[in-house]
Amino acid sequence: MHDRPHLHYRIHPCSVGCLRETRVGALIAVTAMGALLALSAGAQTRDSGPWWPNSEWGPDDQAGASNRITDAKVMEALQLATTGKIYELGQIYEQGMPLFGTRSYSMVLPARDPAAGDNRIVANEEFLSTQIGQVGTQFDGLGHVGQEVVMEDGSVEHVFYNGFTAAEMDTPSGLQRLGIEHVRPIVTRGVLIDLAGYQGVERLPNGYEVTVEDLLGALAAQGMSAADVAPGDALLLRYGWSSLWDQPEAYNENPPGIGVAAAQWIVERQVTMIGADSWGSEVFPNPDEAQVFPVHQELLTKNGIFNLENMQLDELVADVAYEFVFIVTPIRFRGATGSPARPIAIR
Amino acid sequence: MHDRPHLHYRIHPCSVGCLRETRVGALIAVTAMGALLALSAGAQTRDSGPWWPNSEWGPDDQAGASNRITDAKVMEALQLATTGKIYELGQIYEQGMPLFGTRSYSMVLPARDPAAGDNRIVANEEFLSTQIGQVGTQFDGLGHVGQEVVMEDGSVEHVFYNGFTAAEMDTPSGLQRLGIEHVRPIVTRGVLIDLAGYQGVERLPNGYEVTVEDLLGALAAQGMSAADVAPGDALLLRYGWSSLWDQPEAYNENPPGIGVAAAQWIVERQVTMIGADSWGSEVFPNPDEAQVFPVHQELLTKNGIFNLENMQLDELVADVAYEFVFIVTPIRFRGATGSPARPIAIR
Amino acid sequence: MHDRPHLHYRIHPCSVGCLRETRVGALIAVTAMGALLALSAGAQTRDSGPWWPNSEWGPDDQAGASNRITDAKVMEALQLATTGKIYELGQIYEQGMPLFGTRSYSMVLPARDPAAGDNRIVANEEFLSTQIGQVGTQFDGLGHVGQEVVMEDGSVEHVFYNGFTAAEMDTPSGLQRLGIEHVRPIVTRGVLIDLAGYQGVERLPNGYEVTVEDLLGALAAQGMSAADVAPGDALLLRYGWSSLWDQPEAYNENPPGIGVAAAQWIVERQVTMIGADSWGSEVFPNPDEAQVFPVHQELLTKNGIFNLENMQLDELVADVAYEFVFIVTPIRFRGATGSPARPIAIR
Amino acid sequence: MHDRPHLHYRIHPCSVGCLRETRVGALIAVTAMGALLALSAGAQTRDSGPWWPNSEWGPDDQAGASNRITDAKVMEALQLATTGKIYELGQIYEQGMPLFGTRSYSMVLPARDPAAGDNRIVANEEFLSTQIGQVGTQFDGLGHVGQEVVMEDGSVEHVFYNGFTAAEMDTPSGLQRLGIEHVRPIVTRGVLIDLAGYQGVERLPNGYEVTVEDLLGALAAQGMSAADVAPGDALLLRYGWSSLWDQPEAYNENPPGIGVAAAQWIVERQVTMIGADSWGSEVFPNPDEAQVFPVHQELLTKNGIFNLENMQLDELVADVAYEFVFIVTPIRFRGATGSPARPIAIR
Repeated sequence: MHDRPHLHYRIHPCSVGCLRETRVGALIAVTAMGALLALSAGAQTRDSGPWWPNSEWGPDDQAGASNRITDAKVMEALQLATTGKIYELGQIYEQGMPLFGTRSYSMVLPARDPAAGDNRIVANEEFLSTQIGQVGTQFDGLGHVGQEVVMEDGSVEHVFYNGFTAAEMDTPSGLQRLGIEHVRPIVTRGVLIDLAGYQGVERLPNGYEVTVEDLLGALAAQGMSAADVAPGDALLLRYGWSSLWDQPEAYNENPPGIGVAAAQWIVERQVTMIGADSWGSEVFPNPDEAQVFPVHQELLTKNGIFNLENMQLDELVADVAYEFVFIVTPIRFRGATGSPARPIAIR
Repeated sequence: MHDRPHLHYRIHPCSVGCLRETRVGALIAVTAMGALLALSAGAQTRDSGPWWPNSEWGPDDQAGASNRITDAKVMEALQLATTGKIYELGQIYEQGMPLFGTRSYSMVLPARDPAAGDNRIVANEEFLSTQIGQVGTQFDGLGHVGQEVVMEDGSVEHVFYNGFTAAEMDTPSGLQRLGIEHVRPIVTRGVLIDLAGYQGVERLPNGYEVTVEDLLGALAAQGMSAADVAPGDALLLRYGWSSLWDQPEAYNENPPGIGVAAAQWIVERQVTMIGADSWGSEVFPNPDEAQVFPVHQELLTKNGIFNLENMQLDELVADVAYEFVFIVTPIRFRGATGSPARPIAIR
Repeated sequence: MHDRPHLHYRIHPCSVGCLRETRVGALIAVTAMGALLALSAGAQTRDSGPWWPNSEWGPDDQAGASNRITDAKVMEALQLATTGKIYELGQIYEQGMPLFGTRSYSMVLPARDPAAGDNRIVANEEFLSTQIGQVGTQFDGLGHVGQEVVMEDGSVEHVFYNGFTAAEMDTPSGLQRLGIEHVRPIVTRGVLIDLAGYQGVERLPNGYEVTVEDLLGALAAQGMSAADVAPGDALLLRYGWSSLWDQPEAYNENPPGIGVAAAQWIVERQVTMIGADSWGSEVFPNPDEAQVFPVHQELLTKNGIFNLENMQLDELVADVAYEFVFIVTPIRFRGATGSPARPIAIR
Repeated sequence: MHDRPHLHYRIHPCSVGCLRETRVGALIAVTAMGALLALSAGAQTRDSGPWWPNSEWGPDDQAGASNRITDAKVMEALQLATTGKIYELGQIYEQGMPLFGTRSYSMVLPARDPAAGDNRIVANEEFLSTQIGQVGTQFDGLGHVGQEVVMEDGSVEHVFYNGFTAAEMDTPSGLQRLGIEHVRPIVTRGVLIDLAGYQGVERLPNGYEVTVEDLLGALAAQGMSAADVAPGDALLLRYGWSSLWDQPEAYNENPPGIGVAAAQWIVERQVTMIGADSWGSEVFPNPDEAQVFPVHQELLTKNGIFNLENMQLDELVADVAYEFVFIVTPIRFRGATGSPARPIAIR
């Protein structure tokens, strides 16, 4: 692939008033904005300029923080196994499980053809229709969320990780860039932070924002510290929310989760991915009501750090297991925004 | 779950003439059969009686040979990693890949909702419709194939692994028994037998039946023997057939693969699963033209041994890697007959 | 197609105890029944023998009562139009509408390809996944419901209209017999019976069984009589139930509708089809609690009379329109059990 | 709905060079254009200005030329029936039929639940996954095709019939404007022009552009003239192309059809819709190679005239039937771009 050029953009000065604008007015409102600050991508800091294409893995990178799964990291992780016990960290997919928004999940078992051969063989298959990468235990890829940006030439772009734009990515049949197939298999060190346990509750309350202090406090309670979250790790966050998995309405309503500050602390740890036992990993709605899923942007869009949602982490806690081999291998559906997953831990 | 009772059956003496019977006549022909030999399930050898419910893991078992993935086996496997290098052993899923029969694969990328919030977030998802467990790199579960049997009372049953019947299993929305969710995660020792390399060809010819002699010869050429295939292993068979993956018509036509004798030799090795770089793992059509996919029945139905198809094994051979950590975690779609998969090896 | 032979069967003497038998026991219970009465199909009355294959349209017929739409019937119907006003008699299909059981309805709008040509054309399409013939306003075809029957030879068959069996019909990808594509376009005389209006209620109460007396009384209130329901007609029944369409839970719960006696009266009228403004047209549950959807069997299976559900009939009543041209053209999805529909009336 | 304001736009001066621009470059190329001619929508002729929102049915109209199906037109049409014979004018939908581009069609028949009740009822349904409005015999709605336009403020819009923009229309789950549910049922006068018959061929050759002269000549050969194509009519064009329906590759390749001049002649006739026995109704590729499907834009986008593709018109010709009652009732899938259809004629 070619070296991709730097894109120029202008900061989008949308005020809180943008939040509830109608569909019809959306683009018009954006393009009618007044004085815009033009900056060249080459002269920015993280705070003042675009996040792209300054990926540490180069302007063509589509694998994000899965690049941190080096051979050495794999070997380091595998040493953590001492008993061989496998933990299931995901949920089972089925009709009736909690689904976000208007997503759906339907599987049917077709009728069989007649038996064939002297061996009278009969065969089954199944037919599935669903938002495959965004239902159940789901591994969010880098094409899942982006940001609408006004470019220097006045055009409006939807920009994703490493500066890839919707115009580059979209096709009716999937993403041409940043598809889930670019993510490397994840075999790494896993660290669990039990936030519900730290607070002594079955689950954190609705809408609770997990802070940096919570993370550090919970680590300390586990006899660990920030230094125990290492580059390339999978950082798993237990809110206790999976206790509501069987009650879809309650599960879907305003979950607790990390906020932007905690996300930035996590980014500094240079992990490969986070995971959590709620449907978004981040607090919803965000306490800053002008922000919509800002943690998703902080992790995926700006830093290429993956996000595994709807996990099940109780068994690890029951075994007082905070450090382990962690394995998840996103299915390579070309051009998908995410993947179903069966994450496991091994001790 | 309760202890399941033994079912009584009669051997189905269908002659070769059954093979091409019409749909209409199928059940009538079967039920009109003359003298049938009645046997009780308790008094049988493998040759004379039903294979069920004599699973070594008990009459309620639905996990089959994944039970062989004990903690000790996991630990034994993980010791095989010496470099941390990960090998991708599966194909990417996409429209245009080879598909069996009338199966289909369709994914679409929906239009986005307008950007939301001051952070101007935009989000993608995808919608997939397909025979999810039976397309691309696929892990065949125990509900995939069974056998039509005439029971002692004259009724005709479709019987699957461990004696579960279609009447127990079927629902419009998936299997109530033997769904893929019952399979344990596979983290085990992997052994590759390079049959194409042994014969010095890019790929085995169409319709070639791999024999026990081939397996032993190829093992010997690798400096290995039958003793190197151990209980609980994943045994991967390289026919070189993935070299046709980009030519769906050629790929689909009469692949080489193991026959019944080789399958029985494999069963005796007590492996957890096999895998191969062709769409069925077994030779098709079977040289005994009265038999239709008999290896599937031998492995899955009668012995609970799984079958991973449409693999990609060339990179292992390039590295002269015949023994390694092997990992595949079938996605737990409740009631599915199989699963998409992203198998990996680690050395 | 060949002349199909007569099938022999035995009456199935299942008592009320059959009603709640488990899946597992179903077939065994049926086949273990004791003394069964064997009858040849040629010597039966409707009460004592099978309904098949004595279709008045011959043993190969798959079109059922749509055969009553003769050219003369079409001409007779078209004479009823006097103003040209068209009435919409169906609902709009959308996510969130009432659905039966575990059925689902999902439509997505894919992203567009870039504009093409000097004319800068852009194009949309949509992707739908659903039980297409059994959601929303739905035209039940003859492959939709059948009856489990113990045949003379002891085998258990699922038998549908005109004696077609599941063994003849089933394939994984649709019905080989009695698919909706065999139904002729329906252009006929429509007659509406306003049962809610007759009772002076917005809608009939939950679980109310509409009787023959109700039908006759409502007809009389409209200045009509049984003689006004003619062979080949579409008979539409207004329960007022569509007033709950926007409340899926209430709509799905125990609707009123015709019972078996009313169905038999309708059969005697030799209509082509019925239609109603509820999800099943018949009362549910049936007042005889041992019977499950018996009206469906009476109409579809035994008499080839079609059933159009989830209609919207209020506008006709508002115009005091009880007789009209009625048009519905089931979409010919090969092998489907039903069809979405946009039924209309013209006066 | 509110009165919609007039949008301002600039003509898009794209030269032939635009035709093959890459996805990546598309929007950038468009927005980087130099001097653009600004025009207010209120001061335009058809040639110099936008086509919107000057619909003759008002700026809020979403029904297009189906508004021409007045009560009087319906009554006029029904008088054309003299024998009551019904003609099927569509194809059957099934896997294996010709499909455009990457579209797919998959239907499965799920396994049945066990029989229920003393009446031993069993039931079937089916599950369909497909681009429902754009496969097989398909009725193109007004949300199907539009045009990319640079607006006066520099923004790039995708504009559809009556000035509705993608920003107003798009949602992940369907169109918020111009969905197929807004189209009125079509019961009108049908006129068939047999262009293949006029030229004395089984079918017109690949890539043949049907001209105004062809239309007039064929009408004359049928004893008709331009005056016989009346406002509100459905104008059906027979190219003989359906003779290739069973050969999907040949059917899909470069069909004959009308060009822009013929389309404009048709627009002047003020018909409600056209129909044809090919997959696009228009010639493909267009003889002006800089134009991509310009007839679709001329009819649908600019004039609200519908387009029914993949028809079957041979039986009408066999009966020398050029004028008839024509009926098609697009299924009201909310937000869909088109609909499957079972068009019929009655004489």
